Amino acid sequence: MDRILSLQKKLEEISLDAFLLEDPIDLYYLTGGSFSVGQLWVTPKDALLLVDERYIEQAKESLSVSSCLKSWEASSRFIEENQIKSVGFDSSKNFFEKVLELQKKLSASISWKPNPMITQEMRKVKDANEIALIRKSSKILWQGYLYIKTLLKEGIKEKEVAKKFEIFCLEQGSDGLSFQPIIAFGENSALPHYRAGERVLKKGDIVLIDIGVVFDRYASDMTRVLFFGPPDPLLSSWLDYVISAQQSAIELCLPGTLVKDLDVRARAIFKKFNVEEYFVHGLGHGVGLEVHEAPRIRFDIEGGVLKPGMVITIEPGLYLPGKGGVRYEDMIVITETGFENLFPFDKAFL
Amino acid sequence: MDRILSLQKKLEEISLDAFLLEDPIDLYYLTGGSFSVGQLWVTPKDALLLVDERYIEQAKESLSVSSCLKSWEASSRFIEENQIKSVGFDSSKNFFEKVLELQKKLSASISWKPNPMITQEMRKVKDANEIALIRKSSKILWQGYLYIKTLLKEGIKEKEVAKKFEIFCLEQGSDGLSFQPIIAFGENSALPHYRAGERVLKKGDIVLIDIGVVFDRYASDMTRVLFFGPPDPLLSSWLDYVISAQQSAIELCLPGTLVKDLDVRARAIFKKFNVEEYFVHGLGHGVGLEVHEAPRIRFDIEGGVLKPGMVITIEPGLYLPGKGGVRYEDMIVITETGFENLFPFDKAFL
Repeated sequence: MDRILSLQKKLEEISLDAFLLEDPIDLYYLTGGSFSVGQLWVTPKDALLLVDERYIEQAKESLSVSSCLKSWEASSRFIEENQIKSVGFDSSKNFFEKVLELQKKLSASISWKPNPMITQEMRKVKDANEIALIRKSSKILWQGYLYIKTLLKEGIKEKEVAKKFEIFCLEQGSDGLSFQPIIAFGENSALPHYRAGERVLKKGDIVLIDIGVVFDRYASDMTRVLFFGPPDPLLSSWLDYVISAQQSAIELCLPGTLVKDLDVRARAIFKKFNVEEYFVHGLGHGVGLEVHEAPRIRFDIEGGVLKPGMVITIEPGLYLPGKGGVRYEDMIVITETGFENLFPFDKAFL
Repeated sequence: MDRILSLQKKLEEISLDAFLLEDPIDLYYLTGGSFSVGQLWVTPKDALLLVDERYIEQAKESLSVSSCLKSWEASSRFIEENQIKSVGFDSSKNFFEKVLELQKKLSASISWKPNPMITQEMRKVKDANEIALIRKSSKILWQGYLYIKTLLKEGIKEKEVAKKFEIFCLEQGSDGLSFQPIIAFGENSALPHYRAGERVLKKGDIVLIDIGVVFDRYASDMTRVLFFGPPDPLLSSWLDYVISAQQSAIELCLPGTLVKDLDVRARAIFKKFNVEEYFVHGLGHGVGLEVHEAPRIRFDIEGGVLKPGMVITIEPGLYLPGKGGVRYEDMIVITETGFENLFPFDKAFL
């Protein structure tokens, strides 16, 4: 498989004898198989997939030799045959306990190299097929958003909206949610990670909708804010600032831009409006097999540069506890020459 | 909160100055709050919850002082004030990278003690409220199962059944699935961790249904096997063996039984019928806030003894690749005097 080949190339670059992968999403990304538990050993020239009895049949359809995970002998033999002295592993996805176990069970002469992010780096840039799936995921999500707008009547509960949205998207072909919907009425919109509760919609409420679905394993993620009745003047002007900050950041979306500069730009706009203290999170993140993946977009985090095929969210927000908050989020595909926004503009008054 | 108190008692027993918790499910279990990222420090006499800006407002409703996660100073001050020299952490839930970061950022004089399972041990025994939620989760699941039976007509796809089941349960009040439904027709039933695919139902097929939902955070999990048309003689007799093994194991379900003896008993029954080689997984697992939690039930794993309030699955199965498989799974609550099965018996021919 191409992806294993490109991992093998990286191993040569960083002079590692082998890399050990155990994260189920990485296993899917690299082998195409669905294993909740498994080990993929990759060397510059070879690969070995180990799964337990439950997955043997599925694994045979995958790339390579497969054997029983519990048989540490298979790993040991592979290590010996390939004269492996240094093994990289994704320390951001391996549990401490598992690493201790590996160190104990396998050859004592191996040097274990914590190497977070090697697959996250690979997964940052999506191929055409991945982008097609993300596009489909976004299309279903947008339909779900339009459906939510038809539900917003006085007296409906946040939870009802969330549940009906979930069912609607399943019926439209989604495979589920990429995260629990944030449907926040009024003051609840001030909580960036609220979900959906018993709060009932009232005239004059702001409505914050942060939603995402999964289609064929690929996530989508979008936020819109609506005013139900006459808008609160402060929140209404904040929405203008947020959209302005978002548009300014999106204008920078093209190959070569430093990822953290997107956040810097959005913060500069907020500073101009004297509201930067109300922006309490990063500007966005990559989206793909996980709804939050690399890069994280924040002024104080090294995120590399934008490349064609990257898919990121741009989601500035402003929040005032007790009062309310606004956030506006799109998904942006970086193209050869610039960007494509996967969602239409929508600033609506209901 | 009682649960923090009981963790504090444990810390005194094992002579740890503090325990650090970061798993979101454990954070919910101990504080009642929903934080995707956070740190809970517990000492024998005190507790400190650290979350970042996004969660500050929610955290204030939780037990204790809250501050910014990124402010390592808060942790450092807490460590100093409480004269903490040894810190336990759940090595089965902490990523290797995070532990390295903690060791680097916090006082070098701290001794870090990998201590997997301390909260899993606590969570094994459910209180009355938890059992009520699990019961409700199981009730919705059973309705979903009865609904699936009405869907099984020639030509329906596994995936269609899975999707309709999910929507039905959401409508019945579930908060989602506890895992992707396994709906396996014919030969697909031989794959213990199959999901649901394009396979169409045909006369004579065996149908394996392994499903679960979540209600108010609590999971359920159940498996039934149905014959669609005249049953295959081998698989039909295997279903008898499986139910016999399951019933024998369930008879042992009462306080004081060694958990692993349940698996030993089921295996003994299979041995009697000379089919033990086709039973390729453990007998079951605990169910609660996670669909798979402690104890794991398997002859070669130390699982302690059954106690009142534990909720476990008993799910023996027999599989022949290329042909088919059978599994039969109930959820069992351990009571003061014995057990309660949360699901009715159902061996059906359609």
